[in-house]
Amino acid sequence: MSLGKLYGVGAGPGAPDLLTLRAKQLLERVPVLALPRSNDYSRSMAWRIVEPALDVPDSQKRLFLTFPMSKDPARVKPAVERACDAMQAELERGLDVAFVSEGDPSTFSTFIYVRQTLLQRLPTLHVEVVPGVSSIMAVPAVAGLPLADGHERIAILPGTSGLADLERTLQHFDTVVLMKVGPELAQLKGRLEAAGLLANAVYVSRATMEDQRIEHDLAQVDAERGDCFTMVLIKKPGQAGVLLGDSEARKHV
Amino acid sequence: MSLGKLYGVGAGPGAPDLLTLRAKQLLERVPVLALPRSNDYSRSMAWRIVEPALDVPDSQKRLFLTFPMSKDPARVKPAVERACDAMQAELERGLDVAFVSEGDPSTFSTFIYVRQTLLQRLPTLHVEVVPGVSSIMAVPAVAGLPLADGHERIAILPGTSGLADLERTLQHFDTVVLMKVGPELAQLKGRLEAAGLLANAVYVSRATMEDQRIEHDLAQVDAERGDCFTMVLIKKPGQAGVLLGDSEARKHV
Repeated sequence: MSLGKLYGVGAGPGAPDLLTLRAKQLLERVPVLALPRSNDYSRSMAWRIVEPALDVPDSQKRLFLTFPMSKDPARVKPAVERACDAMQAELERGLDVAFVSEGDPSTFSTFIYVRQTLLQRLPTLHVEVVPGVSSIMAVPAVAGLPLADGHERIAILPGTSGLADLERTLQHFDTVVLMKVGPELAQLKGRLEAAGLLANAVYVSRATMEDQRIEHDLAQVDAERGDCFTMVLIKKPGQAGVLLGDSEARKHV
Repeated sequence: MSLGKLYGVGAGPGAPDLLTLRAKQLLERVPVLALPRSNDYSRSMAWRIVEPALDVPDSQKRLFLTFPMSKDPARVKPAVERACDAMQAELERGLDVAFVSEGDPSTFSTFIYVRQTLLQRLPTLHVEVVPGVSSIMAVPAVAGLPLADGHERIAILPGTSGLADLERTLQHFDTVVLMKVGPELAQLKGRLEAAGLLANAVYVSRATMEDQRIEHDLAQVDAERGDCFTMVLIKKPGQAGVLLGDSEARKHV
């Protein structure tokens, strides 16, 4: 029996119709979907995103796989191993498995660990990634701001590691994106205020989802209102519009 | 007559089926498409990407708009003004206009200038952005590499401005993406070699297109083989896989 193929498929940022045509076709065709969730009792956000866009056959099998929201390898690794046990069993039966990632599978996704672990176990496994619309592109879209243009430089930092040298990063980059800003939000607000950049920051949670929130005034956001669907986008006006020969800050629309 | 609405629509990185469901539906519905091209005689790459995925009505109007591949405001600005003249005429007739961007409309896209210029002329204009799959996500997908995971930090730099302080950026970031690497490629190779990171770089041109090229050994790439569809992705191994409790470099698959 030849091994099934492993797909990493981007679900996009949250709105079901931001799925790609390729992802829809693939997810309707594969016999097994692998759907991450954050605990054994919660719904899978990835499944919540793609389900309304799909017309799946009754015969399709869905593996709901639990990955704890943790940065502790002692908790993450056993969960990845258990998830890979379930996926490996299907692959060894010759069935193709599509792991659905929120956003894009190559960008801060559990798929990266799943792929790495399964390739260690099954070195001949074929893997294919279907890229998705990342929240890094969805956040500027809903906030009415460009991410970067012309000569501008972008830094993308996880909330967990982005604050360490935030001031230096703000000095050398035109756009700074902080991903998955959780408990760090209070400290971030203080640091941006001290740097005189609080007015240049936009808070966006759950971009393109029904309950999205966009706040151009960070002072309006409770310090604790951060979670793994929260991003803060900071745009310095210096270089913007440089190819038009002006460098004014752009309007928020 | 009320103004039409302006849409900025991401075409995705190159493969027609990496268009989103929302983009397909919108592009088939709007009466006017605005399609950028690099000179009056070339095909529009954006149209080349989306056309095979669309079923457009005969009545649809297509404006092919020329934007020179230039970083000189004296050349870019008049082209943007002319393009906006054509779009404004349609919007003032009450027609919705969808400007199709290669990749994502918020990320190094001419749409940023078009939007800014049209909003200066028509302050009540409604603008909506449909985010697309960016080449920033397509390149790792086709190269078989993660863009970033866990605590990793990403820098995205235009080829034009990214080399200025490349060594410092490589010191502070785990992943460095250089976009639209043109004549800078020769210098980039030398600088990466000096930094001992040439083996960590991947050259990708036209990711997901039929003529895509992926080269894990930059020494194999002619120094002049750069253009606006060329990206170089540099991955430092230090932090990778940290949530699994190991920090080995991952396999290229």
